[in-house]
Amino acid sequence: MRTLIVHAHPEPDSLNGSLTDVAVSALTAAGHEVRVSDLYAMNWKAVVDAGDYGPHASHPLRVVGDSARAFDAGTLSADVAAEQEKLAWAQLIVFQFPLWWYSMPAILKGWVDRVFTAHFAYGVGEHSATRYGERYGEGTLAGRKALLSVTIGGPRDHYTARGINGPIEDLLFPIQHGILYYPGIESLPPFVTYGADRMTPDRHAEVVAAWRERLRTVDSTAPIPFRRQNFGDYAIPSLQLKPGLEPEGRTGFGLHVRA
Amino acid sequence: MRTLIVHAHPEPDSLNGSLTDVAVSALTAAGHEVRVSDLYAMNWKAVVDAGDYGPHASHPLRVVGDSARAFDAGTLSADVAAEQEKLAWAQLIVFQFPLWWYSMPAILKGWVDRVFTAHFAYGVGEHSATRYGERYGEGTLAGRKALLSVTIGGPRDHYTARGINGPIEDLLFPIQHGILYYPGIESLPPFVTYGADRMTPDRHAEVVAAWRERLRTVDSTAPIPFRRQNFGDYAIPSLQLKPGLEPEGRTGFGLHVRA
Repeated sequence: MRTLIVHAHPEPDSLNGSLTDVAVSALTAAGHEVRVSDLYAMNWKAVVDAGDYGPHASHPLRVVGDSARAFDAGTLSADVAAEQEKLAWAQLIVFQFPLWWYSMPAILKGWVDRVFTAHFAYGVGEHSATRYGERYGEGTLAGRKALLSVTIGGPRDHYTARGINGPIEDLLFPIQHGILYYPGIESLPPFVTYGADRMTPDRHAEVVAAWRERLRTVDSTAPIPFRRQNFGDYAIPSLQLKPGLEPEGRTGFGLHVRA
Repeated sequence: MRTLIVHAHPEPDSLNGSLTDVAVSALTAAGHEVRVSDLYAMNWKAVVDAGDYGPHASHPLRVVGDSARAFDAGTLSADVAAEQEKLAWAQLIVFQFPLWWYSMPAILKGWVDRVFTAHFAYGVGEHSATRYGERYGEGTLAGRKALLSVTIGGPRDHYTARGINGPIEDLLFPIQHGILYYPGIESLPPFVTYGADRMTPDRHAEVVAAWRERLRTVDSTAPIPFRRQNFGDYAIPSLQLKPGLEPEGRTGFGLHVRA
């Protein structure tokens, strides 16, 4: 499988660094083609600004419209265009990052903000009585899979259904559903490493072994079954889940996962 | 009230720009002291790196430990120290930003990642049989209030309890609970402007009037009643919500809001 690894950690000699190293070697040894976007090493510019849109930056700047016209005309900045090319090439995208303040590090959010432009990742497809654009299961990046590998300082208990930080699947919902599924990318269940700030050599070896196993079985792992937008589960155009479809007793983000 | 406005939008001539202008004038006219951190105008560095920690950056870099020692020694980089001073000064913090990919723009996430260092915003307080540090309702920034003003391109329906994007209160939970409540800041109900990409002059005038009204009543508005960590609702140290406390029929993030 053609695999893009997007790596977001400032220190190569770190747990995150070691997990990306393992992914590169394991996937390559298994015959996959692997490319890496190491955002810190690339000195990735994290903030959207007029420089992204070349001659299509308007005054005043309008992010949605300007990014759409720059994408259509092929005048996005070279760094953004290069990442879009990698995404178009990839069949699997692995994201390796630490959970900082319950979300991605800013450099990775800035990769999303800048690379997922209008017409590349959103703002496509027909609007009609039965369709609300191509998104959430359809879209420009459909057919691809993603796998988040997330390191977390705290213990697993704090991220369970009743844990104080909120369930990890809900904390990752804005990424796996809102960012990735929106343009059609399906997420495999995430690989989450807890206790990252208290890693012993033995525990590190266990984590690496588990990560190798997850990567070995990536082809045969079923993705998270988010509901598709245009196939009957949602009213159009309100995009509210139709009555009776919710899993028993579930509210919030969990409504949007098929039972 | 001493108010800090943290503004995160690349274009001053924008809906976000106008809402910050309104906030400055309305709060100033009402006798509040107002300071603004306009992150784009400040050319705010969005990414955590060794430069943040001065002589306390270790090799290899260790973000948690290095930031704690740099904070304790007063050697954090000047831009980070200046923002910490503003937060220490403020009684109210207003965040003005567009929802990009269901979260904050990268430049604002980078403000959090860099400014909310160890010992300034986390890693404080006693761990015992009845306490798990000072966080979630206690903490270094307790006594302060926050108010998110968020602009969203899409319509309100898509962000309701059954809407496809997930409920707006859940999308904002990692910010209002995970980032702000963690060091003790209470969030007032957010001011959310939908349909931001299709703003007419009449609609803009309505939004501005509603925003002025929210700001006028900021002193008398009750914050979101998140549960405090160390006061009996959670088992220690698992930090799981004790049985029977959940609001009827609620799962996910909503467990952590008192009924």
